[in-house]
Amino acid sequence: MASATAINPDLAQERKNATINSEEFAIWWAGGSNELYKKREMAKLFYEDPQFVDHQHIANMSHKELYEYTTEKAVRFLLKLREYLKKQQPEAAPLTPIEEMYELRALMGGPLGSGLFPANFPLRLHYSMFLPTLLRQASDEQCKLWLEKAWNFDGIIGTYAQTELGHGTYLRGLETRADYDIEKQEFILNSPTLTSYKWWPGGLGLTVNMVVLMAQLYIKGRSYGFQPFLVRIRNEKTHEPEPGVDVGDIGPRIGLNGVNNGYLGLKNVRIPLNQMLSRNNQVLPNGTFVKGPEPLLLYGTMVYVRVMIVRDVSVNLLQAATIATRYSAVRRQGVEAGGQQETQIIDFLTQQQKLFPQIAKGIFFRLAADRVWDFYRVVSKELDQGNKRNLAELHALSCCLKAICSDEAAKGIEILRKACGGHGFMASANFGNLYAAATAACTYEGENTVLLLQTARFLVKNYLDGLKRLVLPKTVTYLRMSPQFKWSAKLETLVTVLEITSMERVRHTFFLMQRNKKNPKQTNHAGIQLTKAAVMHGRAFLARMALDSIRGQIKNGTIPPALREVMNQLLNIFIMDLFLSSADEILCFIPSIKGKQIHEVEARYEKCLLAFRRNAVAVVDGFDYHDRDLASTLGCYDGRVYERLMAEARKCELNLEPVNTKSSGHLNRLMKAKL
Amino acid sequence: MASATAINPDLAQERKNATINSEEFAIWWAGGSNELYKKREMAKLFYEDPQFVDHQHIANMSHKELYEYTTEKAVRFLLKLREYLKKQQPEAAPLTPIEEMYELRALMGGPLGSGLFPANFPLRLHYSMFLPTLLRQASDEQCKLWLEKAWNFDGIIGTYAQTELGHGTYLRGLETRADYDIEKQEFILNSPTLTSYKWWPGGLGLTVNMVVLMAQLYIKGRSYGFQPFLVRIRNEKTHEPEPGVDVGDIGPRIGLNGVNNGYLGLKNVRIPLNQMLSRNNQVLPNGTFVKGPEPLLLYGTMVYVRVMIVRDVSVNLLQAATIATRYSAVRRQGVEAGGQQETQIIDFLTQQQKLFPQIAKGIFFRLAADRVWDFYRVVSKELDQGNKRNLAELHALSCCLKAICSDEAAKGIEILRKACGGHGFMASANFGNLYAAATAACTYEGENTVLLLQTARFLVKNYLDGLKRLVLPKTVTYLRMSPQFKWSAKLETLVTVLEITSMERVRHTFFLMQRNKKNPKQTNHAGIQLTKAAVMHGRAFLARMALDSIRGQIKNGTIPPALREVMNQLLNIFIMDLFLSSADEILCFIPSIKGKQIHEVEARYEKCLLAFRRNAVAVVDGFDYHDRDLASTLGCYDGRVYERLMAEARKCELNLEPVNTKSSGHLNRLMKAKL
Repeated sequence: MASATAINPDLAQERKNATINSEEFAIWWAGGSNELYKKREMAKLFYEDPQFVDHQHIANMSHKELYEYTTEKAVRFLLKLREYLKKQQPEAAPLTPIEEMYELRALMGGPLGSGLFPANFPLRLHYSMFLPTLLRQASDEQCKLWLEKAWNFDGIIGTYAQTELGHGTYLRGLETRADYDIEKQEFILNSPTLTSYKWWPGGLGLTVNMVVLMAQLYIKGRSYGFQPFLVRIRNEKTHEPEPGVDVGDIGPRIGLNGVNNGYLGLKNVRIPLNQMLSRNNQVLPNGTFVKGPEPLLLYGTMVYVRVMIVRDVSVNLLQAATIATRYSAVRRQGVEAGGQQETQIIDFLTQQQKLFPQIAKGIFFRLAADRVWDFYRVVSKELDQGNKRNLAELHALSCCLKAICSDEAAKGIEILRKACGGHGFMASANFGNLYAAATAACTYEGENTVLLLQTARFLVKNYLDGLKRLVLPKTVTYLRMSPQFKWSAKLETLVTVLEITSMERVRHTFFLMQRNKKNPKQTNHAGIQLTKAAVMHGRAFLARMALDSIRGQIKNGTIPPALREVMNQLLNIFIMDLFLSSADEILCFIPSIKGKQIHEVEARYEKCLLAFRRNAVAVVDGFDYHDRDLASTLGCYDGRVYERLMAEARKCELNLEPVNTKSSGHLNRLMKAKL
Repeated sequence: MASATAINPDLAQERKNATINSEEFAIWWAGGSNELYKKREMAKLFYEDPQFVDHQHIANMSHKELYEYTTEKAVRFLLKLREYLKKQQPEAAPLTPIEEMYELRALMGGPLGSGLFPANFPLRLHYSMFLPTLLRQASDEQCKLWLEKAWNFDGIIGTYAQTELGHGTYLRGLETRADYDIEKQEFILNSPTLTSYKWWPGGLGLTVNMVVLMAQLYIKGRSYGFQPFLVRIRNEKTHEPEPGVDVGDIGPRIGLNGVNNGYLGLKNVRIPLNQMLSRNNQVLPNGTFVKGPEPLLLYGTMVYVRVMIVRDVSVNLLQAATIATRYSAVRRQGVEAGGQQETQIIDFLTQQQKLFPQIAKGIFFRLAADRVWDFYRVVSKELDQGNKRNLAELHALSCCLKAICSDEAAKGIEILRKACGGHGFMASANFGNLYAAATAACTYEGENTVLLLQTARFLVKNYLDGLKRLVLPKTVTYLRMSPQFKWSAKLETLVTVLEITSMERVRHTFFLMQRNKKNPKQTNHAGIQLTKAAVMHGRAFLARMALDSIRGQIKNGTIPPALREVMNQLLNIFIMDLFLSSADEILCFIPSIKGKQIHEVEARYEKCLLAFRRNAVAVVDGFDYHDRDLASTLGCYDGRVYERLMAEARKCELNLEPVNTKSSGHLNRLMKAKL
């Protein structure tokens, strides 16, 4: 057996053969060496601290054990993180609360967060939803009362409770009510039905003691719509549920079982008037409802969350790609004609087709998130000034990107898992947690089909605007373009073809809807066509964005010369993959493109996979994931796959005694039964 | 809240609105009323027995708890099942061991098996692999010694150990060795490397005490290839590992954690000469190796296992479809223009597109499995007589069907899960177990890509035979057909188009390979094209089979008149879905088909979904799954989704005390830290 520090010789050879320097790639990918070193320092801070070493794989634990284990670790993590951040603060310019929240959100959604908490953790929503909601929806006075305490966990651990057992996406259907009692100047909170129970909020089960509760406000029996209320649900000291509060864990899920998702029912729970968050709307003591301005920033928050999801799932996908790529260099199978040693499975084109497009997707999804993030910051400033001219475009873009990227990431992770054969199915390979994270993102914060329909409506509206010769937002300007182009297999042409296809798909759908309008029963029936239009638009955007981004970064020197070739290969793989995945739509809508052209791209695509193969390991090394980030027996830097699989198995609780007494008793019963 | 026996009113209404009778459908689906009643009797036998009621959802359990719980339940199950079968035997003509094994295999892989054992169970391989291997590979003398004991668990619980840590698919790479010691007339068994450890066999971890071990036979240092050996690995009485045996559980997987997959290393373990299973090959006491005839039946076994997989995954898919369809009738979301009540989500075309094709696929995958099963029985008889003329065709067909159906079933289950929104992610919805079963089937018993390549090689060979004007096997006769057809959107035409596309895909790939041959480095590089050819062939076969089967069953009256319309709708949905999923290939290879025709089929497909909607619940009712088969809070017959979700949550161990003492201690630490 190799020594404890040896690198698997196949991986060592891969690194020798590479034409790029992984460190150079890592610096580019991190956005500069400062960023890279900062990230490594954080990783070191936690991973080298013995109190963050796991002694058992979480997949061995019961639901209850996992909760207790995760809570303890999360508390340790937050205490240490705060201490660290405090030390840093005085030197640099102090961050605003919102900036700090952004930082923490990125940290916890990023590789360190998933490395420490592969099943996520129950205090995350305190940062990602509870604090942001207070910040944006509490009045200045309320902020004074609550924000600092909440920020410091001073008697307060919170979450955001909106989704109910019977309603998620359709907010108007939510049933929780808050009736204003003018006499006592209190709100009376109730869950009038089983379906009105809050269901899903992270941390709600046994962890938090306060919530921002979204409830239908009623004053003198009249409804004033959905409003946010700050409610204590557990005693600050004893942690016992408050009177009238029925709260608990919703039970195990397919994944992300560290979140402690909870349910909450309220029965005549009373809170004072000043606990309705009143930055936007307000109730006066006498029961007058004062409607505030349109809460534009709230729309902005939804966009923000979706951009973060795109970024998070790109990490999930790239981690899975790193694991599978390294494993594919180590695993050997079969002998090619004339060969001596068995073939590394990464040499099979069928394997390359599973691995490399995922690497490319992960990269360009992250770049797309960066691009939309920049756009978000511009729009946020505009919204601060009450200007919402770019909000619809930003909203439409973030909807379809969230839907496409979460869907593709989840599918990609499954392809990568299966590319690792049986071993990919081992919990210790960690594809299970990565998949759970990505696939859950297909549903939360806007179910993907619903989001695609929102983007599609934006497209149809703008197509109509285009017919009216109006100026279109930048990302949909192509809806007015001429469908003329000259075929070549160049990337520029492929991107143009994707845009024309998207335009034609929107046109097709628009006219179908026009026809359907005559039949009132069929208004609902354009759904499939609309979602297809949104997907094509998202693909066209991604292709254009990728092309512009890489060309721009090569031109301005952000991508150093030594990385140009490999980045161009990845760009080619990404765009050709989008093109080939859209072949059915392209062939339907662009009559001049035929099988011959598709096969031409297919052949170039395969060549590109073969060419990229040499640097595949060096590129995934360049994402610079710490072994602990990946948490995978198959994906470590040293490639000692089999040793790790065996070591992990030996640690399994079932193997701590040679005979399992309980089960061997049952088996003896069977063997003595004389069947 | 509704009374304990009430049916959700939406589901009641669905059943009233249906034009078909679910019981009539159930009789057809079960293959006659006798079969249906027999199945219901078995379900009653177990589900109404209080010793088979679960008091906790398995997702709450630790890996160790699950093993202990599953073993106990499995022993109870086998004792009861055997008792029941014994009672039945004297009356009917007794089954042969092989027939009885088939029956048991079908029972355990079917809905009752997955209902009782959603994470599978550790004794299953005793039946599905250990006994069949003894039956087929032990000599008559060895059968006398071992078979009856094994059949009755008389001191023997076994599994089949082939796959190793370092090798799965590529059998020649397996490293476990058996050296024959002429003097003592014994084999000396060894795992010479870490990678030679057996890894994966079900039940191997802590359950079985004997294995059929596949090992490379060496006599006087010379290799005689892979042979089967019968080896005791644990003491019959104490269950302690035998000397030289290193055995244990491989640790948790993404799913199927009831299987107790194990690892096994051997160090100088000696077994007597007569424990090499010698029906095929034999070692004489003096060390002479006597090679037997080609073990044709073994190839047959692989085919059998793959056919069973197609059948099993069709059950997984249909169960998921039943759950999601019922839930979609109960769940309401949003108000359509002019509506009063919220819309049932089953009314959205985008939802129908997620549900109905899966119902159709599940049905036709089962019918495909039936068809190949019939073919298998014919070929088995031929093989018994040493005739292998149909083996290659059967093999190729079973390979691509296993690959396509397991892949589509797994994908379909995920689509169905996501169609249930957040609640689909609850462990209690049971999509997790159904998905794990289907996706694991993509890897075991022949990894899907490898299987597709095997089918593709058969296709290419036959295409060449076709060029040579040779007679082709029935399922590939179309490779010689003329690419002429007259377009219409009729099913017959769509099937013909799929066949022509498959033929053209094979032709295209054949000529690509011819060109590649000139470049010896590129022999491996047709992989992507070859797998595409195999997939197209599988689709063409499925479409033709479905068309023939339904037309035939309507003609001969097997499908009663009242079911004809709905079966035709399902046939239409199935074939049009295959057609639209293949649109890129069709448009590439058949120049006369253009966007116009594709959109024509798209429009008909959408109409068909809308038409089928009325009977969707009645059809899934007609699969006649017992609520316990489905094991889903979302899928029960009464549709009381929210009550069940809440009841299941309240049973969760975490909720048995209002405050979790351990974690609240940690949280208090956080709140007192004065951050």
